[in-house]
Amino acid sequence: MISHKKLEHFTKEVFTSLGIPNHVATVAAENLVRADLRGIDSHGVARLSGFVRLIKAGRINVNAKPNITYETASTATFDGDAGLGLYVANEAMKIAIQKAETCGSGWVAVKNSSHFGIAASHAEMAIGYDMIGMAMTNASPLVAPAGASEGYLGTNPICIAVPAGKYKPFLLDMATSAAANGKLEIAQRKNAPIPSGWAQTKEGDLTTYAHALKDGGSLLPLGSDIDHGYHKGYGLGAMVDILTGVLSGANFGAWVPPFVNFLDVKQSVGEGIGHFVGAWKVDAFQPASEFKARMDTWIEGVKGLKRNEGIEEVLIPGEPEYRFEEKRLKEGVPLNDKVVIDLENLAEELGLKFVA
Amino acid sequence: MISHKKLEHFTKEVFTSLGIPNHVATVAAENLVRADLRGIDSHGVARLSGFVRLIKAGRINVNAKPNITYETASTATFDGDAGLGLYVANEAMKIAIQKAETCGSGWVAVKNSSHFGIAASHAEMAIGYDMIGMAMTNASPLVAPAGASEGYLGTNPICIAVPAGKYKPFLLDMATSAAANGKLEIAQRKNAPIPSGWAQTKEGDLTTYAHALKDGGSLLPLGSDIDHGYHKGYGLGAMVDILTGVLSGANFGAWVPPFVNFLDVKQSVGEGIGHFVGAWKVDAFQPASEFKARMDTWIEGVKGLKRNEGIEEVLIPGEPEYRFEEKRLKEGVPLNDKVVIDLENLAEELGLKFVA
Repeated sequence: MISHKKLEHFTKEVFTSLGIPNHVATVAAENLVRADLRGIDSHGVARLSGFVRLIKAGRINVNAKPNITYETASTATFDGDAGLGLYVANEAMKIAIQKAETCGSGWVAVKNSSHFGIAASHAEMAIGYDMIGMAMTNASPLVAPAGASEGYLGTNPICIAVPAGKYKPFLLDMATSAAANGKLEIAQRKNAPIPSGWAQTKEGDLTTYAHALKDGGSLLPLGSDIDHGYHKGYGLGAMVDILTGVLSGANFGAWVPPFVNFLDVKQSVGEGIGHFVGAWKVDAFQPASEFKARMDTWIEGVKGLKRNEGIEEVLIPGEPEYRFEEKRLKEGVPLNDKVVIDLENLAEELGLKFVA
Repeated sequence: MISHKKLEHFTKEVFTSLGIPNHVATVAAENLVRADLRGIDSHGVARLSGFVRLIKAGRINVNAKPNITYETASTATFDGDAGLGLYVANEAMKIAIQKAETCGSGWVAVKNSSHFGIAASHAEMAIGYDMIGMAMTNASPLVAPAGASEGYLGTNPICIAVPAGKYKPFLLDMATSAAANGKLEIAQRKNAPIPSGWAQTKEGDLTTYAHALKDGGSLLPLGSDIDHGYHKGYGLGAMVDILTGVLSGANFGAWVPPFVNFLDVKQSVGEGIGHFVGAWKVDAFQPASEFKARMDTWIEGVKGLKRNEGIEEVLIPGEPEYRFEEKRLKEGVPLNDKVVIDLENLAEELGLKFVA
C-alpha cells in the first residue's frame, strides 16, 4: 500500500525531471493517480513509464502551449500542441465549463493531444459547477467494426458525470468495446482465458485466448455479436471517433497513433489523438436544486428495484469506483509487483527516489 | 405495396380528423412515415392506431401550444404542452438548430411530450445545415438495470446524424437495450424464440420466450450479461433517461407513462415523456467542407477493412436504412396484413378512406 499523495508526488517529479513545467506536471500527476484511486489500475501509474517513453521519443512535447484555433460562444477547437493529454484535456474542460457558465453549454474538440488517462477525471470537473460533464477520447485501433476482422476504432470511452443531491454523482465511464483493454490485461497477466465475445483472431474467429491481440486479432464492440447488437457498440465507438478525431482535426480510425512508442506511427490524417469534452449547465434547464432532488429520486428508484438472485445491490454508474476511492484515500493504493518494479526502474533511470 | 405519399396523406387525415391543426398533422405524418420508409416498420403507421387511442383518451392534447420555459444562448427547456411528440420534437430540433447557427451548439430538453417516432427523423434535420444532430427520448420502463429483475428504463434510443461529403450521412439510431422492442415484436408475431440475452422473466431468469414481457419480464440492456458489459447498456440507457427526463422536468424511470392507453399511468414525477435534442455546427470546429472530406476518408477506411467470413460488406451506421429508403421511395412500402386491417378499421372509425 502506498498513499496516493506519495504516488502523485513521485509522478510529478518524473514529469518535471523530463522538463514538464510544474503546473502542468501537478495536474497531470493528479489525473493519472485518480485512476489508481478509483480502482482503474490499468490507467494509473502503471502507465507512467509509457508516458516517459513517449516523452523521450519526442512524441510528447514537454513545452506544449495548447491554444484555441476555432471558437464560437459555445464551442472551441483546441490544439494540444502535442502535449500531455492528462493536462490538455483538463485545460479543454476548463474552457467548456467557462462557455457553459456564460451560454448554457460548452463543447471543446481537441486535436494534437495524447493519452488523457481516465475520462472520468475530466468529466467530473463539471460537477462542482452544478454542470453535467462529458468526456471522450479516441485511441489506437484495436476494435473491429461489426463484420470486420481487423481493428479500426479504439476502445473509445464515453463518460458522463451528473451531479446528484444527497448521493454521489452519477458517473458513467465506459469503453465502447465489449471489454476494456484493462480487463484483457488482467487475464493476460494470469494467463487466464477471456469470455467468448471479447476478441477475435486475425481470421475473424471468436477466441478465448487473452493474448489474441498480440497475434493480430482485434477486440469486439459492445454487444459482441450480431444477435446481441454489436453494431451498436460499433456505432458508439464510431461516434466517439468522429467527435474526437474527425471533428477536431486529430487522427482517426486506423491512423490513430499507438500509446506505446515502439509501434510505428502510420501515415497520418491529422494531428495526434483527439478528445471531445463538454458541459451543460443544469441551471440553464431547471433550478439545479430541483434537478439534484430529482436525481436523488432517480437513484432511489434504482436502489428499490427487485434484484436478480445473488445480486446484493443494484449499483449506480460510478458507485463501485467511489467505494474504491473512499477506501484507497484512507488505506492507500495497492500496487502490483510489476508496477512497483517498473516505478523503481523509472526512479533509477531519472535519478529519483521511489519507495513503495 | 403502398406509396409513402399515400401513407402520409392518410396519416395526416387521421390526425386532422381528430382536431390536430393542419401544419402539425403534416409534420407528424411525415415523421411517422419516415420510419416505414427507413424499414423501421415497428415505429411507422403500425403505431398510428396507438396515437389515436391516446388522443381519444385525452392523453395527447390536439391543441398543444409548445413553449420555451427556460432559455440561454445555447440551451432551452421546451414544454410540449402534452402534444404529439412527432411534432414537438421537430419544433425542439428547430430551436436547437437556430441556437447552433448563432453560437455553435444548441440543446433542447423537452418535457410534457409523447412518443416521437424514430429518433433519426429529428436528428437528421441538422444535416442540411452542415450540423451534427442528436436526438434521444425516454420511454416506458421495459429495460432492467444490470442486476435488477424489473424494468426501470425505456429502450431509450441514442441517435446521432453526421454529414459526409460524397457519401450518405452517418446516421446511428440505436436502442440502448440488447434488442429494440420492434425485434421482439417480430418474434412474437412468428411465435419464434428470441436469442438468450434479450430478455429475462419476472424472476430474473434468462428466457428465449418472445412473450416474456407480457408475463412481467423485462428486457436486458445492451451487453446482455455481466461478462459482456450489460452495465454499459444500462449506463447509456440511464444517461438518456437523465437528459430526457430528469433534466427536462418530464417523468423518468419507472414513472414514464406507457405508450398504450389501456395501461394505467403510475404516480408522476414530472410531465409526460421527455426528449433531448441538439446540434453542433461543424463550421464552429473546422470548415465544413474539410470535415466532410474527412468523413469520406473515415467511411472509406471502414469500407476497406478485411471482413469476417460470410460478410459481404462492412456497413456504416444508417446505410441499411438508406437502402430501404431508396427502394421504398421507388417501389412503395410493404405493409403487414395486420397493419392494413388496423388502418382500414381506423378509416372506418373516423369516416375516412384507406385503400392499401
